[in-house]
Amino acid sequence: MLRQSFHELTLATHGRGLNEFTREVEKWIAQNRFNEGLLTIHLQHTSASLLIQENADPDVRRDLEAFFKRLVPDGDALFIHTAEGDDDMPAHIRTALTVVNMSIPLRAGRLTLGTWQGIYLWGHRTHGHARHITLHFVGE
Amino acid sequence: MLRQSFHELTLATHGRGLNEFTREVEKWIAQNRFNEGLLTIHLQHTSASLLIQENADPDVRRDLEAFFKRLVPDGDALFIHTAEGDDDMPAHIRTALTVVNMSIPLRAGRLTLGTWQGIYLWGHRTHGHARHITLHFVGE
Amino acid sequence: MLRQSFHELTLATHGRGLNEFTREVEKWIAQNRFNEGLLTIHLQHTSASLLIQENADPDVRRDLEAFFKRLVPDGDALFIHTAEGDDDMPAHIRTALTVVNMSIPLRAGRLTLGTWQGIYLWGHRTHGHARHITLHFVGE
Repeated sequence: MLRQSFHELTLATHGRGLNEFTREVEKWIAQNRFNEGLLTIHLQHTSASLLIQENADPDVRRDLEAFFKRLVPDGDALFIHTAEGDDDMPAHIRTALTVVNMSIPLRAGRLTLGTWQGIYLWGHRTHGHARHITLHFVGE
Repeated sequence: MLRQSFHELTLATHGRGLNEFTREVEKWIAQNRFNEGLLTIHLQHTSASLLIQENADPDVRRDLEAFFKRLVPDGDALFIHTAEGDDDMPAHIRTALTVVNMSIPLRAGRLTLGTWQGIYLWGHRTHGHARHITLHFVGE
Repeated sequence: MLRQSFHELTLATHGRGLNEFTREVEKWIAQNRFNEGLLTIHLQHTSASLLIQENADPDVRRDLEAFFKRLVPDGDALFIHTAEGDDDMPAHIRTALTVVNMSIPLRAGRLTLGTWQGIYLWGHRTHGHARHITLHFVGE
C-alpha cells in the first residue's frame, strides 16, 4: 500500500556558494523507514537554487561559483531591478538558469544518487539567509 | 488512500515574456479538493519554458528577458537551424537553459510555494502561440 | 489502486552530443502496461544531463551543442579543477545549466510529450561513457 509524507527543512546560506544537505534528506528517509518511492525537494525562494553536483573535489564548487559570477555580473548596467543591491538581479537570473525543485527515485531505503552526486543548496545572494525547503515522499 | 488526477491547460503566449498561471493551477487544485500530495506540471513544447520566479516587481521579469536576449542573441551566425526565423534557435536554447517540467509538494490544500514565488509560462518565440500543459496530481 | 515500479537503464554516450532514448522509456512503460501516472527519470552523473528537445531537425541538436561549447569554453583559464582534462569542468557547468532529473505525466499509456519532444541524454565529456539512469513510476 502506497503512502505519502511531508516535511520541512530550514537551512542557512552564508553568502554565495554551495551547501550540501544530502544528509538532512537521508535522515528524514531513515527516520520514516521509506524503502521505495519518489522523493521531491522544493526550495521556496527565487534567489537561491537546488543543485545536484560532485561532492568530491571542492574545486568543482569553487569553479561553478566563479563561472556563474562571470556569466551574470553583479551591477550589470542592463538591470533595472536593483532595489536590494548589485547582487539582487544576478541572484534571480542564476536561479532561473538552475532549478528550485527536483524529484529523485528511492530504492532499498536509499536515494538513487550516483557515487559522486550530492544535493546542494546554492546561495546566490552575497549575504546569508535562512532558506526554507519542503520535502515530499510517495511510496512504501 | 492515495489517488491521482490528470488535467490539461492551454495558455497563450504573446511573444516573448513571462505569463503567470499560478491561479489556473490553484483553481484545479481547489476544484478537486486536493489536500496533500505532489503536483507536476509539464509543458509540451521545445521553444517555451516553465519558470518559478518572483511575482512582485515586474522589473525582475523585464531584466530576466533582457539577460536571456543578450545571452542568446537572435540571428547569431553560429546557428544553422534558422527555418522559422532569427528567434527559432534562440528559443530552443533558452528552453534548454531552463525547464519544461516541475513538481511541487502540496500541503493543507495549497502548493508549498514561497511568499514571492509564482509559476510562469515563458514564451521564447517573438510571435504568440497556444501552449499546451499537462498537470498530474498524486496524493489525497 | 495506485502502484509503483522501479527500473534501471544503462546508456552509452559517444563523446559530446544528444542521444535520444524516448523509446527505451516507452518500452518499459509498455512492458508494464502503465496507463496513467507519473514517470520520473534520474541520471546518476555530474557531467551529463537529461534534456527534452526537438526530435525533428538534427540541426537543432548541432546548434545546441555549438552554443554550449561557446558558452562554456574548454580549457578556460578560470578553472582550477582540471584533473581529468580541459573538458572536465565545462562538463560540470553544462550539467548545472541543465538538469539531471525530470518527471513527466503519463496518460492513456503514453508519456504526455508534445509532438516534437524527445527525451535525450546529453553527453558533456569529449570521450564516451556508460551512463546510468533510474526510472520510477507511480500510478495505475
